[in-house]
Formats: sequence, structure tokens, C-alpha cells
Amino acid sequence: MSGGLLTDLYEVTMAASYLRRGMTGPATFSLFVRKLPPDRGFLIAAGLEDCLSFVEDYRFSQEDLDYLAVEQGLDDASLRAFERLRFTGEVRAVPEGRVVYPGEPLLEVTAPIAEAQLVETVLLNHVTFQTTVATKAARCVRAAAGARVIDFSFRRTQGVDAAMAVARASYLAGFAGTSNVEGARRYGIPATGTMAHSYVEAFPGEGEAFAAFAADFPDRTTLLVDTYDTIAGVEAAIRTARRAGLPSLAGIRLDSGDLGDLAVKARSILDEAGMTGTLIVASGGLDEHRIADLAAAGAPIDVYGVGTKMGVSADAPYLDSAYKLVAYADRPVMKLSTGKITAPCAKQVYRGADGDVVALRDEPAPDGMEPLLVPVMEAGRRVAGPDPLDAVRERCAAEIAALPDRITRLRAPESRPVRLSARLRRTRDRLYAELAAGHRAAGAGPLKER
Amino acid sequence: MSGGLLTDLYEVTMAASYLRRGMTGPATFSLFVRKLPPDRGFLIAAGLEDCLSFVEDYRFSQEDLDYLAVEQGLDDASLRAFERLRFTGEVRAVPEGRVVYPGEPLLEVTAPIAEAQLVETVLLNHVTFQTTVATKAARCVRAAAGARVIDFSFRRTQGVDAAMAVARASYLAGFAGTSNVEGARRYGIPATGTMAHSYVEAFPGEGEAFAAFAADFPDRTTLLVDTYDTIAGVEAAIRTARRAGLPSLAGIRLDSGDLGDLAVKARSILDEAGMTGTLIVASGGLDEHRIADLAAAGAPIDVYGVGTKMGVSADAPYLDSAYKLVAYADRPVMKLSTGKITAPCAKQVYRGADGDVVALRDEPAPDGMEPLLVPVMEAGRRVAGPDPLDAVRERCAAEIAALPDRITRLRAPESRPVRLSARLRRTRDRLYAELAAGHRAAGAGPLKER
Repeated sequence: MSGGLLTDLYEVTMAASYLRRGMTGPATFSLFVRKLPPDRGFLIAAGLEDCLSFVEDYRFSQEDLDYLAVEQGLDDASLRAFERLRFTGEVRAVPEGRVVYPGEPLLEVTAPIAEAQLVETVLLNHVTFQTTVATKAARCVRAAAGARVIDFSFRRTQGVDAAMAVARASYLAGFAGTSNVEGARRYGIPATGTMAHSYVEAFPGEGEAFAAFAADFPDRTTLLVDTYDTIAGVEAAIRTARRAGLPSLAGIRLDSGDLGDLAVKARSILDEAGMTGTLIVASGGLDEHRIADLAAAGAPIDVYGVGTKMGVSADAPYLDSAYKLVAYADRPVMKLSTGKITAPCAKQVYRGADGDVVALRDEPAPDGMEPLLVPVMEAGRRVAGPDPLDAVRERCAAEIAALPDRITRLRAPESRPVRLSARLRRTRDRLYAELAAGHRAAGAGPLKER
Repeated sequence: MSGGLLTDLYEVTMAASYLRRGMTGPATFSLFVRKLPPDRGFLIAAGLEDCLSFVEDYRFSQEDLDYLAVEQGLDDASLRAFERLRFTGEVRAVPEGRVVYPGEPLLEVTAPIAEAQLVETVLLNHVTFQTTVATKAARCVRAAAGARVIDFSFRRTQGVDAAMAVARASYLAGFAGTSNVEGARRYGIPATGTMAHSYVEAFPGEGEAFAAFAADFPDRTTLLVDTYDTIAGVEAAIRTARRAGLPSLAGIRLDSGDLGDLAVKARSILDEAGMTGTLIVASGGLDEHRIADLAAAGAPIDVYGVGTKMGVSADAPYLDSAYKLVAYADRPVMKLSTGKITAPCAKQVYRGADGDVVALRDEPAPDGMEPLLVPVMEAGRRVAGPDPLDAVRERCAAEIAALPDRITRLRAPESRPVRLSARLRRTRDRLYAELAAGHRAAGAGPLKER
């Protein structure tokens, strides 16, 4: 979905006003997360790819302009300006799959202010949602302690295109595949799936259903064993394989009951039957905490199917993200609203062994520290093609593997220190003092305490 | 987004197996919510319109078939069957905007089993998400106690098409408008918006920004007053109107600080200036509980802008929904999995003064009770055009207005009793006994306790 109307009305209003007034100076907006949700020590950056596609194609169609004219009363001069409007600016961003922390810009846009303003809504949307989900998915992967984790969330994500983003973001964060066929096709992710209870019920009995499935898919016979009685289902699955002349079953799936206890019993029955290679797939209301409990108890589960709670990031379904004007026409900018002071100016984030430093964009890199923001779009065009998703996934795995347990643990983790550079702090404090003095001079009463 | 691959892989696998085996008998699947999320006493049905559009257009493109052949190894006979496959069945559903309760089918599909199975994923997705959001939005409307509520959620919904669904579902549930321009255009919803902090900051001072906005939009001057100091901002807004020769301001917006206290002060300053008609708009992290607190304290807020927490239904971002096979080829069906027993057979829900009754579809209506499920699709085509959104909105408002406070209150509400009819209970118990006996006869060990 692209198009000029994919924005909030006030962006349109403000853009019209800027253009009417000839306010075409470059603005820099900084997109960052203010604070971590509960139980998160880090975030996984995601959503950039959809942002770049959106920005590159941003324009108003004739239909969009007609709506703005007729329904919103937009004047002719503004309509003509919008008709020509394209995104001509630059974007610098942290690549997808990298570990990031609150207060660090994930993305900075520098463009004529009307353009930068109009794309705000969708940029925030993609980065907020996909970073939320990639982070949640990374927690599930960690919890599984080496077992595979699969995305089963399509049926309960918040809309159909959310399901596509979840398939991609969870794979990026280490999932092994998805049940979402369109998501798998679109992003080249392994598609995976077994059978539903309805399949078993559509046959006169479980045995008939299993036999039919084994006959139709002899090379990938994973049977759902809990429709009537789980242990009896495991035994029926084994009988099915033998009758069908299969040396083994690809897998069995458990979807209800005490998954840990049933997995132990199923493993034992399968092993006694010589089916030591048959995978045990577990699903049903799982999240990182349930997975961690099962893994800690030594449940012999090979594959976790994780659905809704990952797909909507149920315990933390959004991030406190912001897209803030930090400079306009070479003037640093900040607001003073209670509790929401943000540092001005275009920035760079440097990563070092002892923590990260947020600095002014043009500060020299501190010794041995790596800049995280890289140019991804110049003059409205991408600097390079999309990162291959498997490369993003490997980057993500490597970054998480390098984090200490105190940051990655699932409960009450620590985060990493993020400091402002001395120059950025001085710039912020000077601007604050200037704004405060300006308000006192204007007789505007005392400013709120910082 | 439509297309054959918008489904889970196991639906494709099962559909191929059904078709290969000539299992084309009619299946009935029942879509319902198992239980209410915390603090909900009722649900608002939503999502049906997107379901019908999806089902009516369901088909596999050549590209879809190529993917299934090459990447999923689907055999030629299945590919040919899929190429011809359309949804040819019937759908009965509770109209959007009606109040519903757990255990009541919101939608029942009766179709050749492969078709009914393939559309499962997207039907569950739309109904689950949109019912979640409509319910959350209805809570915000109730909390506002007559003040207007506006959807500001686009920037942090779970994807861009989620934002469209939220604009529609929240309007349906009583919101007065949305900031989402494309959502407003698509669904004919009032679009609304003010200005952002960035607008104020892009000018040398707040006074200059306010003057520019008032000059550009004299008939809808709503000024955001909290960029630097809120009370000073209100005074600056009044000076702006006077200098611009405006008799009044359309509104001011508060987006930070103690909204209740600031609203009282702003109202007093505005009233003293003779601007008694200037609306006070409040926003910033609002949800139904914050709104209720503000309203209970008598805060003079005219319009609440509600964003993220409504748009993702932050405290309950999903519902425990299910799409269960209840009959196949005229045979009633149920599963016995632990804790997940569902009643078999196609059903009807009857609403009466004392509560709802879930009955067999062909039972006569109990005296004075109204059936909730109505035919919406027959032989794969809609029975009628879409319900006009404003009609759905009025229906929803009337249904909620008729509910007692004990069901609509925001904390620890009661729900409404939903009983099974005597015939449905007998049918379920008989089938349970048959399945249990069948399993004992098959030597499958004792069944789990119900």
C-alpha cells in the first residue's frame, strides 16, 4: 500500500502551510524509542525495508488530490504543490537486525520539511511494529535454547499485512520458518505446517485420518495427535507409519494438555518404536516464558510453534517511539514539554565495548567505536538494494550472541548504558537555556522544571 | 490483499488431501470467541465486511500455483483442482456492530471442506482483530461520557492496513473521526487533525507559528499549546486569534502534563477571553481508564484523541478465538482435547431479555427471542451489499445503550448468561459418549476427564 493519503491529516495540513510559506529548508527528524517495555533489555531494529519502499514511492495520485480538494477543502496552490511532491531527501538508519537501545536514533530523515513531515506516520508505524515483533521473536528464540521456533501467528495478527511483517520480522530474529504461505513466498522463508484437528475429525476416526495423510504426504508425515487422546494418538501415529510401510514419521504435534509431560511420554513411546528421529512439535498458547519453562524442564520438544502471543507481542504490543524534529534550516530544535525533552541536532550513534554514545552527526568517531547509522537513501533514492533477509538474520544472530546474559535474560534484564557525548550535552543545554530565556523575555511565565 | 496463498500451509496441505480423496461434502465451521479478555463484559462484532470481500475473491493465481508447485512440491492433480477452486459455500454471521458474548458463533461457514478450510486463517484474522479493536474503542467512548473521541492511532498500529481497520472499527464503535486520511477517505469517516510540535518548532517562536497557522486555516484554527509552556501557550493562542481578527479559536490541544488540571486552567483562561466555544482537545497516552478518570474529575475536555493503546488494544491485543469444524457431510463433529471441548453442529444464537441461547441451527426460535446469525453469503456470493457504515455505527450505539452498567463498566464487569439449548446439550453429550465409547473399543485407553 503506498500513496499520499497514508498519513495523518495534520501532516497534510502542516505540509500545505510550509509549502505556501516557502518553508522548504531541510529538516532533520530523528526516529527513536523513548524507553524499553517491561522485561526487555534490548531491541532488534526492524522495519527499515518497508520504510524505504514507502518513501521512494511516495506521491499523491489524482484520486488523492481530488479527495483533499473536495473533502478537505485544500486550495488549488497546495494541490498543485502536492501533485509535484516527491520525497527528495536523505535517510540514515541503523540496519535491520542490529541490537539497539532507547534514546538511539534508529532512523534519521533529512529533507524539505513538508516531505519529511508527510512520511512521519508510516515510518513510525513500520519501525515501531516491526521492531516490537522482532524483539519479541528474539526472546522466543533465546527461550527455546537451540530448538527450532516457527511462526504460527497468521490467524490472530492485527490484520493480514501484519502477518506478512510478522513472518519476516520473526525470521529475521531467528525463527526457522512460518506457516504463512504468502509470507513465505514473498520473503523466501521456509513454509511449514502439519494438520489441524478438523482434518482428523473429517474422517470416521483418527486412524483413517492418519492413514490418509501418510498416504498423501509420505515424505512429510507430521501427525497431530491430541484430537481425542494424546497418548493413544501417538500410538495410532506409530501404527499408521508401520502400516504405510514408512520407516518413520517426520513428526508428531502436541497442541493441548501438559506439553512437557506429554512430550516426555511421546518421546519415550516413539523411541521404543525405533522412531528416534521423529520430531516433537509443540504448540498452543506459547510465548517465551512457557518455552523457557519447557526447555528448563528438559522437555524433549524439537520445534515450538509460536502464534498469537508473539505475533501481537502480547505483553508489550507497542513501543514508546517518537519522530522528532531536531533541526530545521540549520537551526537546532527541541521542545520543552513536560517529561519529553529530546536532544537537538542530527546525530550518530557509536557503539563501543563499554556502551553506546549518542553524538552529534559530525563529531569525529570516538576511538575504536563503530557508527551504527549508515546512509540508506540519498536524493530520494536508495543507496543500495535491500539487504538479503538471510544476511540480516545472520547479523541479528551474531549481535544477540555477543550480548551478556544480564541483557538477554527474559525477566528483569539490565540494558546497556547509552550516554550523550559531551558536545551533544553542551548543545542541548545551551539550546535549553536560550529557549528558556526567550520565553522569560516574552513574559511567558516560568518554564516547567526539567 | 487477496489471493490463494493468504492462508496457513496446513490448510493447503489438508485441502489437497481432501480434494484428492473426493472429500467434497459440506463442512460447517463455527467461528467464536472462547472467553472474554480481562475487564470485558461484552464484545462488539466486527470484521465481517473484510471477510466477505476476501472469500468472494478467493482464488489461486498462476503465480500462486507456480509457488506451490516449485517450492511446496504440490502435485499436478492438486494444482489443477486449486486452479478451479472458488468459494462456493454459504456464510451466516452476526452483523457488524452487534453485541456478542463468548461461546456464540460470530460466523458460520458451510462449504465443501477444502474451501472452508482454506479461508480459515483470514476469517479468523479479520474477525479476531476487528472485534478486539471495536470492543476496545467502545470502552473509550463509554469512558468519555458524551465527549467526542477521535482515532489518533495510525503511527503505532501493527502495520498500515491495521490502521485502516482501526479507523473503521473505532468509528463503528462510536468514535467521531480519525486522523488517518486514507482511512477517512476509504470509509467515509470524518478526518480530523490539528498541528504537531514540529510545526511550532519550525518557526522562530510559538507566536510566529500560531500566527502562520491562523492565517492559513482561519476556519479551523486548533493550536497545540504545550510545546514550551502550556499556560503561556494558551495565552499566546488567544493573542494570535485577536491579532488575526478571529472572533474565536476552533480549539486548543493539550498533549502532555496533567491534562485535567491544565484543561481546567485553559478553560478558565479561554472563557475569560470570551472564547467559550473553543474546544479543548486532549491527547497523549490515553486509554479508557485515563479518560474515565478525567471525565469523573470533571475535566472540561471536549475531544479525546486516543492513539496507540486503543489502536493495538494494548491491555488485550487479541481474543481467544477459534474456527472449529462442527459438522462434516451431515455428521456432527467435535474434538475431545483437554479443556477445548466444543459443541457440535451448525448453530443459531437467540437473544432474549434474560440472556442468550445457543441452539441447533434448525431448532424453532424460542418464544420472543431474536436470531442473531443471518445469511450473508450463498453459493459464494453476497446476499446483499455491505451494510452502510453509519447504519452499523447506529446499531452498535443502540445495542450498547441497552446494556446495563454491570456489563459495560470498565473494571470487573459481569457478562451475560449464554446457555446451550436442551437439544444442543443432548446432541453434544450423545456425541461425546459415542466418541468415548469408540475410543474405548479401539483400546485407546481412558479418555481424559471433561
